[in-house]
Amino acid sequence: MEVGRSIQRVDAVDKVTGRAQYTDDLCPRNALVAKVLHSTIANGWVKSMDTAAAEALPGVVKVLTCFDVPEIQYPTPGHPWSVEPAHQDVADRKLLNRRVRIYGDDIAAVVAVDEITARRALERIRVEYEEYPPVLTPQAAMAPGVPPIHEEHPDNILKHTVSEIPLPPSDFRCAGDVLDCPAYHRFSGHYETQQVQHCHIENPTSYAYREGGRIVVVTSTQIPHIVRRVVGQALGIPWGRVRVVKPYIGGGFGNKQEVLYEPLNAWLCVEAGGRCVKLEASREETFRNTRSRHPISFDVRAAVDGDGYLMARSCVAVSDQGGYASHGHAIAANAVTGFRQTYLDQLAHRSEAYTVYTNRPAPGAMRGYGIPQCNFALECMMEDIAREMGLDPYEFRYQNLMPPGYVDPLNGITCHSTGARECMEKGRRFLDWDGLRARYQNQTGPVRRGVGMAVFSYKTGVHPISLETSSARIVLNQDGTVQLQLGATEIGQGGDTVFSQMCAQAIGIPTEDVHIVSTQDTDIAPFDTGAYASRQTYVTGHAIRRTGERFREKLLRYARELLPEAGELDVRGRDIVDARSGESLLSLADLALEAFYSLEHSVHITAECTSHVKDNTFSFGCCFAEIEVDIPVGKIRVLRIVNVHDSGTLINPKLAEAQVHGGMSMGLGYALSEEMKLDEKTGRLLNGNLLDYKLPTALDHPELHALFVETEDPSGPFGNKSLGEPPAIPVAPAIRNALLHATGVAVNTLPLTPQRLVDAFRKEGLL
Amino acid sequence: MEVGRSIQRVDAVDKVTGRAQYTDDLCPRNALVAKVLHSTIANGWVKSMDTAAAEALPGVVKVLTCFDVPEIQYPTPGHPWSVEPAHQDVADRKLLNRRVRIYGDDIAAVVAVDEITARRALERIRVEYEEYPPVLTPQAAMAPGVPPIHEEHPDNILKHTVSEIPLPPSDFRCAGDVLDCPAYHRFSGHYETQQVQHCHIENPTSYAYREGGRIVVVTSTQIPHIVRRVVGQALGIPWGRVRVVKPYIGGGFGNKQEVLYEPLNAWLCVEAGGRCVKLEASREETFRNTRSRHPISFDVRAAVDGDGYLMARSCVAVSDQGGYASHGHAIAANAVTGFRQTYLDQLAHRSEAYTVYTNRPAPGAMRGYGIPQCNFALECMMEDIAREMGLDPYEFRYQNLMPPGYVDPLNGITCHSTGARECMEKGRRFLDWDGLRARYQNQTGPVRRGVGMAVFSYKTGVHPISLETSSARIVLNQDGTVQLQLGATEIGQGGDTVFSQMCAQAIGIPTEDVHIVSTQDTDIAPFDTGAYASRQTYVTGHAIRRTGERFREKLLRYARELLPEAGELDVRGRDIVDARSGESLLSLADLALEAFYSLEHSVHITAECTSHVKDNTFSFGCCFAEIEVDIPVGKIRVLRIVNVHDSGTLINPKLAEAQVHGGMSMGLGYALSEEMKLDEKTGRLLNGNLLDYKLPTALDHPELHALFVETEDPSGPFGNKSLGEPPAIPVAPAIRNALLHATGVAVNTLPLTPQRLVDAFRKEGLL
Repeated sequence: MEVGRSIQRVDAVDKVTGRAQYTDDLCPRNALVAKVLHSTIANGWVKSMDTAAAEALPGVVKVLTCFDVPEIQYPTPGHPWSVEPAHQDVADRKLLNRRVRIYGDDIAAVVAVDEITARRALERIRVEYEEYPPVLTPQAAMAPGVPPIHEEHPDNILKHTVSEIPLPPSDFRCAGDVLDCPAYHRFSGHYETQQVQHCHIENPTSYAYREGGRIVVVTSTQIPHIVRRVVGQALGIPWGRVRVVKPYIGGGFGNKQEVLYEPLNAWLCVEAGGRCVKLEASREETFRNTRSRHPISFDVRAAVDGDGYLMARSCVAVSDQGGYASHGHAIAANAVTGFRQTYLDQLAHRSEAYTVYTNRPAPGAMRGYGIPQCNFALECMMEDIAREMGLDPYEFRYQNLMPPGYVDPLNGITCHSTGARECMEKGRRFLDWDGLRARYQNQTGPVRRGVGMAVFSYKTGVHPISLETSSARIVLNQDGTVQLQLGATEIGQGGDTVFSQMCAQAIGIPTEDVHIVSTQDTDIAPFDTGAYASRQTYVTGHAIRRTGERFREKLLRYARELLPEAGELDVRGRDIVDARSGESLLSLADLALEAFYSLEHSVHITAECTSHVKDNTFSFGCCFAEIEVDIPVGKIRVLRIVNVHDSGTLINPKLAEAQVHGGMSMGLGYALSEEMKLDEKTGRLLNGNLLDYKLPTALDHPELHALFVETEDPSGPFGNKSLGEPPAIPVAPAIRNALLHATGVAVNTLPLTPQRLVDAFRKEGLL
Repeated sequence: MEVGRSIQRVDAVDKVTGRAQYTDDLCPRNALVAKVLHSTIANGWVKSMDTAAAEALPGVVKVLTCFDVPEIQYPTPGHPWSVEPAHQDVADRKLLNRRVRIYGDDIAAVVAVDEITARRALERIRVEYEEYPPVLTPQAAMAPGVPPIHEEHPDNILKHTVSEIPLPPSDFRCAGDVLDCPAYHRFSGHYETQQVQHCHIENPTSYAYREGGRIVVVTSTQIPHIVRRVVGQALGIPWGRVRVVKPYIGGGFGNKQEVLYEPLNAWLCVEAGGRCVKLEASREETFRNTRSRHPISFDVRAAVDGDGYLMARSCVAVSDQGGYASHGHAIAANAVTGFRQTYLDQLAHRSEAYTVYTNRPAPGAMRGYGIPQCNFALECMMEDIAREMGLDPYEFRYQNLMPPGYVDPLNGITCHSTGARECMEKGRRFLDWDGLRARYQNQTGPVRRGVGMAVFSYKTGVHPISLETSSARIVLNQDGTVQLQLGATEIGQGGDTVFSQMCAQAIGIPTEDVHIVSTQDTDIAPFDTGAYASRQTYVTGHAIRRTGERFREKLLRYARELLPEAGELDVRGRDIVDARSGESLLSLADLALEAFYSLEHSVHITAECTSHVKDNTFSFGCCFAEIEVDIPVGKIRVLRIVNVHDSGTLINPKLAEAQVHGGMSMGLGYALSEEMKLDEKTGRLLNGNLLDYKLPTALDHPELHALFVETEDPSGPFGNKSLGEPPAIPVAPAIRNALLHATGVAVNTLPLTPQRLVDAFRKEGLL
């Protein structure tokens, strides 16, 4: 069995020795350098621009402004194209924008022989603006009389959706308010999450050059095939005239599930006569001009019966979209969908979601895609209900969990397998939950401890919201080993390793004999929409399995030509064997040599298949956090985080554990310290760098424990389901609930900074 | 019709703008540089080497000598692997050799941080030799008592083969001597050809680095898949652990149909800890340490009947193989095979070929692969026989030509089509052959003019001598255009352009919508043995046609899903059309979008096929040369060269013409000025550079006329047959025969230098 083995990452040695090549490593020596001029207002228009002094600077090749760009608005999110115009992404930006919508918007660009010249040229550009007051919250943006940030949306609401559903087996109909249902206890709460950034190591970097009348863009992206399409759209050229190459990337976490500076880079290359132009975002640009996690506020209500069963819930989510639509309403919609799932409502559910333009830096996709936000609201609510009703918060969650076989009434996603209860039980035992809950009751004094928990569910891929399609190609080598070629992308998560294991398993050979082609080149890579939505092991896994099985059939068919008299054949290890006795009849190396070089029948054995996946399934998990709070200084010290996950069968348990560690770390920063802060007067981002933006360091981390409950999901290609995003989801609410346990104080806004805690402790009389 | 159009080369703009990227353009900035130490003797042993001073030099990373290399002998020619050991290539060299076999043999290498340091380190290496006298001719090498250059061949004869055949319809049996047949006239002659070099613009250049436990070699080669195999053999590692990437190359002409410095480069990379190492041959190294054209001497005889029909011919060819086997006996064998073809012997034929090791720089494959040599002997002989018998040389050739349907009795190759007679007629008319022959009779004075001609035939690929296999892959883009991916290589000849045309023709789309993937990466490129033997338009052409047709079927199958009610469908231009009316029903762009993104049936349409070709066919052609000879200074001025070719259907007439121009240029240097000269005492190459080696310059060129007779060959994928090599074949004998016509002096040794001509004119009393 190759699946299930904790083999070393296939790229481990190259990555630790510095041999792995990233975009900037590959950029030609003589590339020109582009730099972008950013607006010094958050809201308004560029009235005029004087570039003469910049153009006069020796070494400047081109100065281009928002007055020069094609009159094309294009979309940026990494979604599959929709053949139905109504479902297509919002096209609300140009390559450079005269209409300024965020402080630091892209308004001009310089191409020069080197970076210093480009920067000096930027300083020489004079800009005249027409300025409006910055609008920095959805509430402000929706206020009457506020000028629209995008003309197409006069009220600044990008989209507003409502779903009301009665749930079986009830025939209860919501008349006016779903909460008007029979219930023992009614609850309402308000929770808020903040804007954070992905903080991947490698900033978005690309370079572009012309080749044979086409534009080649080499870029650090999660979605090469989508970048290809959007560059074509943005430049108004046929998509086949664009080639995108994706080398190793230094992390993405969803930021690179967006088409960022690639279209601008491609256009600057064209304007520079096809010469190679590099465009590398600085960390400041990455914070401000690429994407981030949406700040979403939730007004939630719930009705619970006397036995502690959820009768109905409702949720109003208001998502701050910043200056550009990016993924549009999809994230707010996913957040309210996520709020509905995990637990079962016996009677009814209602959700309402607003996505509102403001002048903030525009958020987009980030690990979890709205679910960390809604999970914070949901799991705070579950804790708060239990507290109000005097229920055990563990039991209250446990009894309300979505059952196996659950079918979401709106999107039809089915719970094909669930280890949610087992996860809860495993975490409870591991942490000695009951012992600690009891021990930390009724503490006094300035330093107190507490334990908290949170539970989550997470879909696997995007079906049926969007298309799930993936292809794979397998190529035989002359020594009997194979290459595996995919459109799916390694983004640091270990994808290449688990793909290799899946391929080996499907063919019947050792993983060591699978060489994965890590770089995607859209000219030749099989099509795949990319790395997002924790889809790849599931959707691409199906493509690998199918292609591997077809490849195996082709090996056996050729082996049959060489072994006409043998019994049933099989592929095992490095041999063609007798399927019954296991006896080796022919090595794969000899089979390969014969297939390549036979004078009778030379054939180059390869296989290529598409898998169009029309299913989805839920992963589950929970987090337990043990913390210590220093009340006078408002400081939380996290002692332990225990995540327990049901992600179906684990393809590589060690990699899965590493994935969970990374997610817990991201959750820790989300809980305690990370927040993009804007100057309230100007809308300028105040902490767009890794000194002022408080990402947790290694020293800020507690013990991290990653545990698993392995189910075998019948819809997964190898029993597996989503794992990439889930680990980041439940950490923040678990810590918030531990704080509540330790102090009795409910803090409903993230992050749980010392200032915020001290304010709350003062208000509650602890200080 | 896309085939037959003189479209512009697909790489034209990139090449003339300098945008096309060659190996050195791609080499990473921080690559280490390797330089090779060459022996200062031609024959002997390295007894010891002192590298301490070199190693002590700052910036030197590694000094490796012939005492350090793996104990593995490996072969270098670009032939398909043979699964039968007896047919495998001669493995007679190591990465660096203690046994020195040429002056300048590779005996050590330095890897350093830059080229200057590497060169300085080379100078510090001290070598002690055991020296033998250099053996510089086959005659000297075969003399009794001469020490063997390779122990495995005590007489220095690498191989000696004899073929004796009676030819139908005769039942004449050669008893002792085929020339003992009934005949009117018996002829014998001796002709000699010299050693020349390819002189491609780009010297052999490569760089190698480790990636994921494998070695990647980026190299200027005609045969990436074979380089992969030979690097594996030379280093003793599985072939799948090697990845070879071939970018654009600056010419090859057969020199890069050999695995040159790639194995050494790969090994130096491994020894340098996997760091990237570049190894670029200088022009001097290219002349001496890479390959060249074999000098071959021919003793020929012929018996002719009274009507001027060839009754029998015999030929003894002695080929100087230099210090290493390279392509082994294949070239001498091909030369005597070529001598047998073109014309028909009524009764019998006998050939004998020797390939002999000497201490010359080792020759290998070069455009024509032995045929320019044998064609010089054959066409001088035909001229000389006609002269001796008082026959018209045109008519004598014409009446003896191989007839359509001819089957070579030894290898079975069939003359499926022949335009040989039409070529002769066309050239005769174009040049006014009869008028000039008459006008230039009986000249006197120091400056005289003459016209001469030569005829040739040439096979298409290597079947049945060796395997002919090729694969192609076609990938649909989202805008309805396609990529064509091949293992066959563009080497400057325009391959990519004609492949694109063939692909377009097979699918039914415009060539503009075919984007060819020019770079071969052995991990993902379909398998193909490479560019040699004028095989690609024929063998790879079959693979493209088959793959294109399968791709077309897949398009139509998907179109049928979308157009279930339509009549018979076809692909025309950029549309799916009604096959009868030609009415457009669906654009390919819309079909593609639907196929990629359909929520019903998403499939990424690609096709990949192998074509194993088991046929061969003859191309034909002739050359007419008009020259002026200045007898006192021995100087030939070529006034006109007219080549007329039957290469079947022309895929791109303009490119075909350019191919012929290049070949005529190569033939011109072969005829008049090019020769690698060795110091007779030491065996040192005296003119291994482009100043002393006399390649014709633009000013040395006469008017070049390329004419064609288009036949449609039934075995060719598009009626086409070989064209790449033939143009270089007939030029030298045509010029030699024109010299004979002008002066009455037969010069039987190439090149026709002033010194050689003056000597001959003196001997014949003209001076």
